[in-house]
Amino acid sequence: MSRPNLQIALDHSDLPSAIEAAAYVGEIVDIIEVGTILCLQAGAEAIRCIRALYPEKKIVADTKCADAGGTVAQNCQAAGADWMTVICCATLPTMKAAAEKVQEVQVELYGDWTFEQAEQWLAAGISQAIYHQSRDALLAGETWGTKDLAKVKRLIEMGFKVSVTGGLSVETLELFKELEVFTFIAGRGITAASDPKKAAQAFQAEIKRIWG
Amino acid sequence: MSRPNLQIALDHSDLPSAIEAAAYVGEIVDIIEVGTILCLQAGAEAIRCIRALYPEKKIVADTKCADAGGTVAQNCQAAGADWMTVICCATLPTMKAAAEKVQEVQVELYGDWTFEQAEQWLAAGISQAIYHQSRDALLAGETWGTKDLAKVKRLIEMGFKVSVTGGLSVETLELFKELEVFTFIAGRGITAASDPKKAAQAFQAEIKRIWG
Repeated sequence: MSRPNLQIALDHSDLPSAIEAAAYVGEIVDIIEVGTILCLQAGAEAIRCIRALYPEKKIVADTKCADAGGTVAQNCQAAGADWMTVICCATLPTMKAAAEKVQEVQVELYGDWTFEQAEQWLAAGISQAIYHQSRDALLAGETWGTKDLAKVKRLIEMGFKVSVTGGLSVETLELFKELEVFTFIAGRGITAASDPKKAAQAFQAEIKRIWG
Repeated sequence: MSRPNLQIALDHSDLPSAIEAAAYVGEIVDIIEVGTILCLQAGAEAIRCIRALYPEKKIVADTKCADAGGTVAQNCQAAGADWMTVICCATLPTMKAAAEKVQEVQVELYGDWTFEQAEQWLAAGISQAIYHQSRDALLAGETWGTKDLAKVKRLIEMGFKVSVTGGLSVETLELFKELEVFTFIAGRGITAASDPKKAAQAFQAEIKRIWG
């Protein structure tokens, strides 16, 4: 099994705070995400700044694009993003249009969706899926369970590179040990830690311990 | 029947172009939308600039929010937006969190959704719905039909203020004459017209002719 990536989500409401967080952990993580909140607050300038800081890292723009896939993808690509996200209730033409303009597109799984739809997303050129526990749902008391893991497994078997995110901690990584997870996405589990660099290193150490 | 509003969607990829378009038609329309593309490109600065230009107009930030509803709503409100949008596949906690922080929230209907879900959105504090023909779907040859109009009617009867958007022209407004549409949203139908001001005036004249 290949070793999962570690992705840091920069979900700050202002660019300087995001840059500060990136500077702590950018060299340790594999992928840097310009989070939705940051995209909406600072615009494409956020992507450009993170690209300027880390010319060699994978950068994903978490646009959660629902429409105008081609334009949004072109803008993200022009600003320096490798990948972008689309929301699962976007239409197939939107997904296809996005997939043509950036290196890879990730579909974000929120609310109700079906594995029949997932087959169509693959056919539309979507190579990655993000299995997402909503932050608000987590706050409302929901958490990772057997049902989640079974869905993640099935998506991987279908051929998606699957990222998981939402309330992850170093302790929860072991839950996924039987699965070829592509990427673990951590946000405030790292950025809000008293020592973000140590927190990122602890994630990477645990990923190496489990997946080798 | 009350007269529908006219909303201009600023879906530009840069702020100066959006401001130019707003300056042509801002006084004629009822609602100004900072479109998703513009939000993602220029960030909250776009909302602040449009608010600065039009202190008295209703402004909606088309964030198509899928998560972190409270934070996104707070940021939009702080930048000067009256309303914001959430995507229909957002979780109910996300919708509720958003509804607590801005004046009104509009749910954007993309992909598969049900009227049972719509009842839950109402209960979560969502007062407006946007029945949206995807631009990409339109490009792929889909258009307004009887099925669409029946859905719009049912949403209105449920108690939503319903906006309709996607490929609208002055000629298509008559299709909706039996319905108490809350808002017609036009984008490039106005901004890409040879005379955007005249185009906006033609929309308003036709709305007045039909709805009085």
